[in-house]
This record gives sequence, C-alpha cells and structure tokens, in this order.
Amino acid sequence: MIAKVIDGISYAESLTYEVSEWVRYLSETSGFVPGLVMIVLGNNPVSSAYVSVKSKKAKMVGMHSCAHWLSECTTQHTILSLINELNDDDRVDGILVQLPLPSHISGLSVSSIISSEKDVDGLGIINTGRLFVTNPTNGLIPCTPLACMRLLKAVCSDLSGLNAVILGRSRLVGRPMSQLLLNEDCTVTIAHSRTGKLREICKRADILVVAVGVPGLVKADWVKPGAIVIDVGINYIADTSDKSGASRIVGDVDFSEVRNVAGAITPVPGGVGPMTVSVLLANTLVAAMSRRGLRSNMKLLP
Amino acid sequence: MIAKVIDGISYAESLTYEVSEWVRYLSETSGFVPGLVMIVLGNNPVSSAYVSVKSKKAKMVGMHSCAHWLSECTTQHTILSLINELNDDDRVDGILVQLPLPSHISGLSVSSIISSEKDVDGLGIINTGRLFVTNPTNGLIPCTPLACMRLLKAVCSDLSGLNAVILGRSRLVGRPMSQLLLNEDCTVTIAHSRTGKLREICKRADILVVAVGVPGLVKADWVKPGAIVIDVGINYIADTSDKSGASRIVGDVDFSEVRNVAGAITPVPGGVGPMTVSVLLANTLVAAMSRRGLRSNMKLLP
Repeated sequence: MIAKVIDGISYAESLTYEVSEWVRYLSETSGFVPGLVMIVLGNNPVSSAYVSVKSKKAKMVGMHSCAHWLSECTTQHTILSLINELNDDDRVDGILVQLPLPSHISGLSVSSIISSEKDVDGLGIINTGRLFVTNPTNGLIPCTPLACMRLLKAVCSDLSGLNAVILGRSRLVGRPMSQLLLNEDCTVTIAHSRTGKLREICKRADILVVAVGVPGLVKADWVKPGAIVIDVGINYIADTSDKSGASRIVGDVDFSEVRNVAGAITPVPGGVGPMTVSVLLANTLVAAMSRRGLRSNMKLLP
Repeated sequence: MIAKVIDGISYAESLTYEVSEWVRYLSETSGFVPGLVMIVLGNNPVSSAYVSVKSKKAKMVGMHSCAHWLSECTTQHTILSLINELNDDDRVDGILVQLPLPSHISGLSVSSIISSEKDVDGLGIINTGRLFVTNPTNGLIPCTPLACMRLLKAVCSDLSGLNAVILGRSRLVGRPMSQLLLNEDCTVTIAHSRTGKLREICKRADILVVAVGVPGLVKADWVKPGAIVIDVGINYIADTSDKSGASRIVGDVDFSEVRNVAGAITPVPGGVGPMTVSVLLANTLVAAMSRRGLRSNMKLLP
C-alpha cells in the first residue's frame, strides 16, 4: 500500500484563501483590518524565518502585520511591558511571541500576560483552560494541534472510536492534541520519552501523531497498515548529498519507509508546517471578529 | 494473589489531621480561621449527604463552614450573585457548588465565576488551565483526581514509565487525572464509552483508574495481575439482601472478583470518597494561606 500524501500546502492555501475573503469582506463592510503583532527574541535563524513567513502571509491575506525584533538579552520586564502596550492597543488583534524563548524569560509569564482575547497562539492559561473545559471550545485553540486536526479530518471525517496515539506530551502539541482527539471520540494514548515499548504502542494506532523532535524516529514497522500518520517534527539535519554543508528539513517519521505502510501521511516539509501558519491567520481573524462582537461561520475545527 | 486494600479512610484521616494541625497553628499565630462555603441546589439526597459530611469535617478540623441550601428552581442570576458576594467576602476562602446542577444552570458559568483563588474544587477555567500548563501546578487541583493520586502514591511512590489507563473522560476526573499521571511520567490512555476492546485496553494497565458510573463494570479478567486499581465510582444499587428495599453503594469495579487479581485496590465505600473530602479541606487550607501570602510545606501531591 502506498499512503495518500496529505498535501499540507494545498489545504493551507484553501484556508488562507477563506481567511483572505473574510478580511476583504470585513474591510469593505465594517472598515477594519485585523492586525497581528509578533515578538522575536534573539536571532535564532529558524525563529526569524518562521516569523518572516507568518508576517508575509498575514500581509498576503490583507491583514496588518508587524514584528518586534528584540535582542536576546532583553529583560522580562521590557517584554511584559511591550505585551501590556499591545494588549491595550485597539489596532492589535493577535499577539504572538515566537518560541523558543531565551532561558532568562519565563514562557509562562509571557503567555499568561497576553490578553486571552489576543492570544492567537492559544497557549495562555485561559485559552488552555477553555480548551480542556468546554467542547466545542469557546477559546482560541493552539495552532499546531488545530492544524493537525484539520489535516486529519481532511482525510477522515469521522474519527469516532479510532485508537489515537500521540508521541510527545508537550503543552504546545501533545497535551492540547489529546483533548481535541478526545472531543472527536477517539481513544487517546499519550506516550513520551519515558514510555516503554514505544513501537508496540505506535503499532496499535489508527491515528499516529508524532511531535518529539527526533529525526526519523518512527519507522515502517512502528505503523499499523492503513494508519493516518501526522508528523509534527521539524528537524534540521546535515544534507549528506550537499558538499557545501547545507542542512535539510526532515520530520520525526521516516517518510520514505512509512509511506509504504500508512494509509495517509503528512510530509515534512509541506505538511503540518504550512497549515499551522494558515491556522494562525484564521485564529487572528476569529480574535479580531470576537473582540468586535462579530461571528464568522468559518469552522476552524472541521 | 490477594490485593492490598487501599484504606482510603485511614489515609484520609491522616491528611485531615495534618490539615487540622495547620488550622490550629494559623489560628494561634495569625489569628485567622479558614472558611469554606458550599452551595447546594435542590434536594438531591446524595448531594445533601455529601455536603453535610464536608461541612462536618470542615468544622472538625477547626474551619468555619456553612452551606446555602437553595431551591432547585433558583435562577442562574441569583446563584451568580451569591457567588459574587462570596468572592468579595474576605472571611470566605473556599467556595464549592455541589454537583450535579439542575439542567437550567450552566455549570461552566458557575465554575467560571468563582474566583480562582477560592475555587477549591479546582474546576474553573483558570485552575484547569494552570493544571495543564504548569508542572508542578501553581493552581488548585480538582479534588477527586488529587485524591486518586494520593492513594496511588501511598502504595507506589514511583509511577515513572508505568502504563496508566483511565476509564472515563469527564472534566471532573478523567481529563485532569490524565495530566497528573503524565506529570508522573506515566504513559496515559484515556478510554470511554466509544472505545472498542475496553477489556483488552484495561488489561494492559499497570494503573487502572475507573470513573464511568457503571456498577461493577470492571471484572477480574479486565485486570492485569498485580495492577493498582483506583475505583472512583459511587453507585447506589438495590440491596437484594435487604427486604426493606434499601440501597447499597458499589463502585465501577467488581471488588470481590478484582481483589483476587490486582496488586492493590481501593474499596467502595471507604476508598476515593473519604480522601476526596480530606483533599477538599486541604485545598481550602492552601487557598486560605495563598490569599494571605502564606505558604505551607504541606505537599498536596506527595
């Protein structure tokens, strides 16, 4: 069996188009344009690249977008002050602080101070609480798990009763993903670095979501024939075919092997990554409308 | 193998004693007495019995305690107003609205309006968010899952790498329990009414937590020899040996069968129930101290 490759770029483009149509409509009818502000700390080239892409895409859909590029040694006080200003700025609908943060900055303090209405990354205490307490959630859902759900449901509309295994228990992906899958009536297992018999556990999965940051960890014999495999990993490894020492991006799943076993699989690059950017724009749109008491009929969770 | 019976009454008594010592110390040194206020809606005899026990135990440890017994047809507006008054009342450290609520009352609205500092049931948006985002949590942990963890760790101090299965995905028990077990490095599976092959999944568990409300669902052949079984169920069934038509309390686990297979098991009654009441008192103490900037060295999560 050769797996269906879930084309994240194409699904992302169609969501991006939908967002752009809404932005145009709002601008014409209500005269406002959603605004997304990002904060980057330090000059990690990967973080910088992500923020540039997000900013470019936000502008493409007609949103206002800007980024604050702060030095790595910026104090926590300065960052929190900046976030407070953005919280109070009516032109700003979404605030995103690009991860990872320097070690002297508390991620919890940062995500907790962003107004829950503008927390488009969905990682603050209040949006997290809403995700776990309400179904459907009345908060903003973290972008990466929401992107995974959109890709999953693009290939399987009814997940009820399926056995879902999540590798990785982070608060960015694994934990919120478990709630979204429970809400879809999946049986959910969360496995991680301390789990024994990982291969055996993965092999029982109808849905396998991998978010551990280990290049090519999941091999063909870890996967049940026909399973849907969602690869969240983005790992930079040396490209042995390139003599200049360039690196290339691979996922946590050994794509070339696993595609021969799985029923459907997201590639890396071109899978979860682009969809995550589109979901960020959709979250910003929803935040902008909610703050103004408007409601779109755009379904973020299909 | 005959399982060790985990004596919830005895473990609860020892926590209750610890709380009472703290209450005495605080009263003598700081001159304040923690206060717990409960709200009951309607006259469900089970709810009434629970609240009476909680109130009695709170007084036993030296706390102030009172209950508002409101008619089942009380409006949501009235309840929310009452909670707001209690939020503003400096003598009140813990507010608990006894579940279940009448159908015209939104549980989410009620739990969301209780000040997170006084949310001793730990079920509001903010304490839920804190549980999922922080480890160790800086919030109040829901009483029943916390009670389960205390009993579990009384018989097994290191849960790392163990395979935990939770039957039931409620926001009161199953979902918060999954986070506490992940924080202990367990591999966690959440199964529920839509799960297939329940027996097979349970049989893989080193730790089995059952919270589904189905009397005697879990049989001996669902349990791995030596597993720790935590039974959260409290079901009232007709007592066939009693000709007056009285009812008796049983759990979700068939105790008489499963005790011959498990390594340790909580009985019903006398297991999770009494510990949950003690944990409520401990949460109230912690809330009272936190509000005053004090910190006990009492470890709620052992």
